[in-house]
Amino acid sequence: MSVERRGPLSEGKAKILYSTDRNDFIVQHFKDDATGFNGLKKGQILGKGPINNSISAWVFQYLEKHGIPTHFVEKTAEREMLIKRVKIIPVEVVVRNLAAGSICKRLGIEKKHRFEPPFVEFFLKSDELGDPLISERHIFYFKWATPEQLKEMESKALRVNKLLTQVFDQVGLTLVDFKLEFGTDNDGNILLADEFTGDGCRLWDKETGEPLDKDRFRHDLGRVEESYQEVYQRLKRHFEGN
Amino acid sequence: MSVERRGPLSEGKAKILYSTDRNDFIVQHFKDDATGFNGLKKGQILGKGPINNSISAWVFQYLEKHGIPTHFVEKTAEREMLIKRVKIIPVEVVVRNLAAGSICKRLGIEKKHRFEPPFVEFFLKSDELGDPLISERHIFYFKWATPEQLKEMESKALRVNKLLTQVFDQVGLTLVDFKLEFGTDNDGNILLADEFTGDGCRLWDKETGEPLDKDRFRHDLGRVEESYQEVYQRLKRHFEGN
Repeated sequence: MSVERRGPLSEGKAKILYSTDRNDFIVQHFKDDATGFNGLKKGQILGKGPINNSISAWVFQYLEKHGIPTHFVEKTAEREMLIKRVKIIPVEVVVRNLAAGSICKRLGIEKKHRFEPPFVEFFLKSDELGDPLISERHIFYFKWATPEQLKEMESKALRVNKLLTQVFDQVGLTLVDFKLEFGTDNDGNILLADEFTGDGCRLWDKETGEPLDKDRFRHDLGRVEESYQEVYQRLKRHFEGN
Repeated sequence: MSVERRGPLSEGKAKILYSTDRNDFIVQHFKDDATGFNGLKKGQILGKGPINNSISAWVFQYLEKHGIPTHFVEKTAEREMLIKRVKIIPVEVVVRNLAAGSICKRLGIEKKHRFEPPFVEFFLKSDELGDPLISERHIFYFKWATPEQLKEMESKALRVNKLLTQVFDQVGLTLVDFKLEFGTDNDGNILLADEFTGDGCRLWDKETGEPLDKDRFRHDLGRVEESYQEVYQRLKRHFEGN
């Protein structure tokens, strides 16, 4: 698709969005910048931008093929993809297969506790407020999403979990948890938006149990770039067969 | 009722529970100790114990008369009341009429925003974890309460809100928000438990807008003892007519 990139629309912690000459499409640019603990820790992970762009592209294409509509159109450059312009629903959906991260500290749950069935939490998308935990009643009271939208988001998130747990399992990774964002297009359709990368999920090596995701950066575990590369290479073999 | 106090069962931030010679009754003792911000701030409010004991006794009796079963039996000493032994449900129910305190910071809501209808939040009762916010799905997943119990707790809390908003209004106070705890007796009945005092609610003078509750202690507003006394005297006139 021939679309020309124009000026920046907004810059987030790890991405920049650019307008294009087509009102209904924008360009999503992946930076190397990394943050942890809601922006308290800042740094860079060299090469993360191109890796996250590729992984997101593969994952979005795979999910589309399996019935999950996304905002993805096509990869247009090493660090950029063309996406449909959506109105982001300010509710982040987190799906947890195993307990790790914030929920352990918050509720005193042992790390690696298996959620059976997978457990879903909602957070308000707000850098300013540090993405606080919210409940359905907050969401409906403040009209951040309608009950119908939330139901659809949750069911899509659980379907994504099933599909991707399988994919990651095939490349020797455990999908521990992940965060999704959704948006609505002009017709009110709910599309999976944002990204799916090691920045927004936890991936543990199936054999060693080692984290290969942003937790390496958050907790100074070392081999940060190498771990992003490792996940990239495994998925590349899986999706591109080389 | 003739019941003899025995040894302490547990000590909390503001109360001590004692066993008695009757297995199904315990004694609740109100201390002057005060804490704020989940125990980070500590101190004493002189005379708070007797005041909170009296206010809780009046409120529990009033609510019983209006169809809300409570654990209250009778006041037995200046700082003590006899209560039915219940199994506390570890879910704190917070009802908000106006925005104040944690919800303002957490969700960026302006202070004094009026919730119409009143807004209910749930928190996990855990000193260790700092009473974190939880949602229905946490409550049901971890079996902290059943859906039926939670529904009954919420409807009772909203009924308490209606009843007490009226009472406080009659003594020139705005009931801003409050926290309730519930417990189950041996037959599974849900009883209002714990206390209802200036430690667990926000009360603003209707004319001046001044807080007359624990926020004076939390935020070093001065006249802490005097404010507890003021609320006590107003309620005393209301409930005892003198």
